[in-house]
Formats: sequence, structure tokens, C-alpha cells
Amino acid sequence: MPTTAKGWGTDAPDQPLKRMTFERRDLRPNDVAIKITYAGICHSDLHTCRNDWGGTRYPVIPGHEIVGKVTAVGDEVTRHRVGETVAVGCMVDSCMECDQCLEGWEVFCRKGCVQTYNSKDYHDGTVSKGGYTDHIVVRDHFVCKVPDGMDESRVAPLLCAGITTYSPLRQYGVGPGTKMAVVGLGGLGHMAVKLGVAMGADVTMITTTPSKGQDARELGASDFIISTDAEQMKAAVTRFDFILNTIPVSHEIDGYLQLLGRSGRMVIVGALTPMPGFVGMNLIWWNRAVGGSAIGGIPETQEMLDFCAAKDIYPDIETIRMDQVNEAYERLLKNDVRYRFVIDMEQGV
Amino acid sequence: MPTTAKGWGTDAPDQPLKRMTFERRDLRPNDVAIKITYAGICHSDLHTCRNDWGGTRYPVIPGHEIVGKVTAVGDEVTRHRVGETVAVGCMVDSCMECDQCLEGWEVFCRKGCVQTYNSKDYHDGTVSKGGYTDHIVVRDHFVCKVPDGMDESRVAPLLCAGITTYSPLRQYGVGPGTKMAVVGLGGLGHMAVKLGVAMGADVTMITTTPSKGQDARELGASDFIISTDAEQMKAAVTRFDFILNTIPVSHEIDGYLQLLGRSGRMVIVGALTPMPGFVGMNLIWWNRAVGGSAIGGIPETQEMLDFCAAKDIYPDIETIRMDQVNEAYERLLKNDVRYRFVIDMEQGV
Repeated sequence: MPTTAKGWGTDAPDQPLKRMTFERRDLRPNDVAIKITYAGICHSDLHTCRNDWGGTRYPVIPGHEIVGKVTAVGDEVTRHRVGETVAVGCMVDSCMECDQCLEGWEVFCRKGCVQTYNSKDYHDGTVSKGGYTDHIVVRDHFVCKVPDGMDESRVAPLLCAGITTYSPLRQYGVGPGTKMAVVGLGGLGHMAVKLGVAMGADVTMITTTPSKGQDARELGASDFIISTDAEQMKAAVTRFDFILNTIPVSHEIDGYLQLLGRSGRMVIVGALTPMPGFVGMNLIWWNRAVGGSAIGGIPETQEMLDFCAAKDIYPDIETIRMDQVNEAYERLLKNDVRYRFVIDMEQGV
Repeated sequence: MPTTAKGWGTDAPDQPLKRMTFERRDLRPNDVAIKITYAGICHSDLHTCRNDWGGTRYPVIPGHEIVGKVTAVGDEVTRHRVGETVAVGCMVDSCMECDQCLEGWEVFCRKGCVQTYNSKDYHDGTVSKGGYTDHIVVRDHFVCKVPDGMDESRVAPLLCAGITTYSPLRQYGVGPGTKMAVVGLGGLGHMAVKLGVAMGADVTMITTTPSKGQDARELGASDFIISTDAEQMKAAVTRFDFILNTIPVSHEIDGYLQLLGRSGRMVIVGALTPMPGFVGMNLIWWNRAVGGSAIGGIPETQEMLDFCAAKDIYPDIETIRMDQVNEAYERLLKNDVRYRFVIDMEQGV
């Protein structure tokens, strides 16, 4: 039987989020039902609510950093059991037949993966509704295990901010001896510092905000550079092997490219938008490259959770109640959070 | 004793090249004197003569694709002997003490390498003069061996067009199974096709010129795409692992980026200039990257020569006399050469 879910969402781009009820589908044979305990707030949630990228299907109920307990499983589910602590990230379904799915990169599914919210279900055409809710129903393959012993209250942001930074670090072989920089100290940036340090890299934070220098050191960075200080930037030319660039808006890249040494790589994870031009010589000289990286696939997401459990890595979070979400969005717009809001669903939806 | 050299150069950006004489230095202990037999013509020669990039020191005598015979060696030279066939590329000196030199990347010497022409000698401050001459004096480390049995008349363009395309293919691990594309069919592009095929890649040529399709197949390409045909480009989205982009001028990259599959890489080797903007999503989605690559270092240049000898790879060339150089430049401007001019110095300088 379908179940009635309670959640928070919005009907229009200019409306605040409010309490809503809607139906979650009856379990298909490969579905898992999850009582949500914590949900992270990602910048994408806000962008989607406000239709900043277009394509929002209202009413939208956001949230793709989800932690909870399994309450029921479909007949064919073998990977998950009732009572387990599990997590769901940005995807809830994909074709599982194409080259990308078979290689563990469901995010690039040729059919188009079903995102956790604002995306059409393959089977019934309903629009997916995310984690700002009391419970959710998700295809088993897209449910990750939260390793035993993890502090469940701090896991949720790993499902987006964590995997989005973990994946490029792995793709580019960051490890002991890597001279790494992180540009931008926010939800993604602070995870990149922690993950880079845990992988053995020597991490420098690059930020526009001098006051974040101390924060960067507390996160594990060995140094920091103020990107608006021309002298500091000049002194760092060719210093880094790898730069993770978390700036979420369009920006000039030439100044950062020049910080890369021979065969250095910068990876953009935030700026989806049209970017300004760059000088070809800044790539050609020193054999540099600039890449991008989306969220990882499901196998890598599980690997990331296992890595964070083993290394005791968590995001820095501020816990809020569901009814504080609109206030949290306003603070998010002012970068007034260190570094991720997590909604505690146990305090009521 | 210094020797009098005959060569062709120009006094001013708007003047044709003409016959000139000048002095080559007496051999230093680590110098090699070379009678030049063949010199390739690179687009850079023309740009430098015409001061297109600024910084030309007149009179300039260009040429950095040089083949010849050793006629004398300095007292400390052990790597080369009189009578050997040798080759010189874009560099003739570097500090040989910094991290880059010690790792075989003299092109990125921290002190700044001395280029084969238009560059100041470290010791006497004279301006280097290139290969459009009857002989040259070069520090031993920067003289490569032409493997026995190579056709000396076709080797010269390997020293710039060859290494500039060989190096990125090696850096990015092109090999059997790589789905590779080459953008632009000119001096660099035609070498990239041959080298890619020799490394085992499946190579597609991407060009604006339909008539080059047959040429591409003759060079070894299995397919070709007309980049101005939107349907063909659309059909090739996510098709390639690696694209070598030899376009020598500023150009939009979004259309090419979209041809890259997951973790695909495009490397720019021609466009040194300011490039137009690009869409961040074209890097982030599919985890793509765009890089650049300069010429390789000396060890890799030797490796490239050995590879070409083993695989019987040569550029397609048109041999000219030294006194036809101005006509050749005019044709170069119209892309009227398949694919590289080589000056035969034996016919007179």
C-alpha cells in the first residue's frame, strides 16, 4: 500500500518552504523503505526550489543527503535488512544496463538516472521527492550502508558534499606527497580539505576571506593563500600538483591555472555555468589541465562512506529542526554556515 | 675560432627572408658543431619573423627542426662523434640543475631554456640563430641521435611537429583501444594521426575541410568528422577517450568537449592565445578535462625519434630549396602544404 509522507517543500520559486503531505509508492520487489533520521541541506536544494537552473517541477520537495533506518524491504531485496542504518544520495534509480551503469557510474546512465528529487520515475512517471521528509522509498542498489559505529547525525552531507569531493581526489590519484590546494571554503571545500589530508596530501586552502585562514588550519590545511592578494598568488606560481576548485559560480581560471606545476591538474566541481575565457598558454606551458567532476557512482559512494568511517572523517555541521529550513536558506545565501546544515528529523517534520 | 655561417633571415617584420652571414661561436668544451643537411619549416618560424607574438630580436634567423652531420665536438663531449647523423629541436641550452632539467623537462627549466633561435645565450648574450643555415653549434645534451637507417631527408619535422604530438599522447597513455580524435589536419595533426595509429589507437580525424577526409584515411585514420556538420558532431557525442586539438588559433572548445566520454581528455597544443569562454558543465558532466602540452624534453625527444625509427614513421613533406622559403611562407599562410616543408640545404643556402 502507498503510504502518506510528511515533508517540506514549495509550490513556487518565490514561496518559502512549508509543510506538505504526499504519497510514497508501495514497495516494488527491489525497493527499500527508509525512515529518515537526518537530511543535509545542499545549495542545489535552494537553487531547485527557486528554479535558478530552470526545470523545477512544483511542488518540489528537495533533499539528497539522506540518512535513516530501513523499515521494510521488497521481496527481492537481499542487500539491506530492516533496522540497518543506510544513506541515500543524489540518485535513486538508473537503467543498470548501459556501459556507465555496469561500470559503476550510474550518474552518467545513458538513459538518464532518476535524481532523488525533481526527476521522473521510470515506471509511474511521478516526480521524485527528496529527503526533507519523514520517510522515503528507494531502489535497493541506490541505498548505501552506513558503516557500524559512525555518528549517524553527521553522515548526511557525505552523500553529496562528501562524494563530490572524494571522487575527483580518487580520479586524480591524490595521495601521500601530493601538493594540493582547495579553492573556496564552504560545504564542499571543507570536506575536500579533510579528505585530502586523510589521503596524505599536503593541503593549502585558497580563499578570498582572510578570516577563514584559522578555520582552514583547524580543518587540517598546512597553509592558506588569500586569492585577492597578488603577491601571495605570485609566490605560489607552479606550487601545486592538484587543485580542487569548489567555487560555485562563473569565475576566471587563469590565476589558478598558474599555480599548477608541471602536469598539474585543477578540477572544477561547483561552477556549472558559462565560464569566462582563458589563455591557452596557461594550459600548454607546464602541460597543465583543467577538468570537472560530477558526483561519483554508487560503488564509489559506498567506498567513500567506508573511508570516512575508517578515518573518522565527518563534515562540520549545524543541526537544525525541519521548521527552521527557510531561515537556514537565508543564511546559506550569505554563506553563514560552517559548513553544512543538517535537519534532525527526530525533532519533527 | 668562430666560424662564418650562411643563412636566411629577416631584418624586420615586413621584410622577406634573405641571405645573411653571421658568426657561429667557437666550440665550448661541451659543444657539438653540426653541418645542417635538412631544416623543417614550422609555423612558429613565420610568426617569429613577422613578430606576431612580439619579442622578435632582429635580424632573426629561424628554424628549429634541424638534421645534420657532426663535424666537430668540444673536448668534453662523449655522447656524440664526428660523422654521426644528429638532430636539434626547439632548445639548445638550459640550466641542467633545476628540478625540471633534472627530470628531463628542460623545456620548463626554471632559469628559462635557451631556444634554438631568437633567444639569448646564457654565456655571451648573443641571440641564438636557428636552422635556416649551413651549420650550427649546440650544447651536446641538446643534440639528439638520428637512429641508423632513418631517411634523413624526412626526419626534421619530427623535432617540433613530431615531439609536440608524441609527448601528449604519451602523457595521456594513448595506446591499444584508445578511441582518439585529432582536430585539425596540418603539420601537427597529420603527425598525431600517424603516431596515434602506431601506438594502437583507433583514430578519427576531425576537420572543417571535407576534401581532407581521403587524406585522413591515407594517414591511417579509421573515420573522419566534419566539425561544421552539426549532425555529425551530435552523433559523436561522448565517443572519444582522447582528443588532440591542433587548432593553432583561438577557438570555441565546448563542441569538442562534448565529444569526450567519461574521463575523456582533450589536449590543446596549438592555441597559445586567449580562448573564448566555455560551459563548466561540459567539464563537470562526464568528468572531462581539457589540457595543454608544450614540446617534450630531450629524453622524450630521443624516445620519439627511436619510436619513429622502429615504426617507420615520417612526416609527409615537400622538399624545397632554401631560396624558395619566401614562397613557402606564402603557401603556409594558405595551408597549401601537405604537410610540412623541409629545406634541403645540400642544394645551397
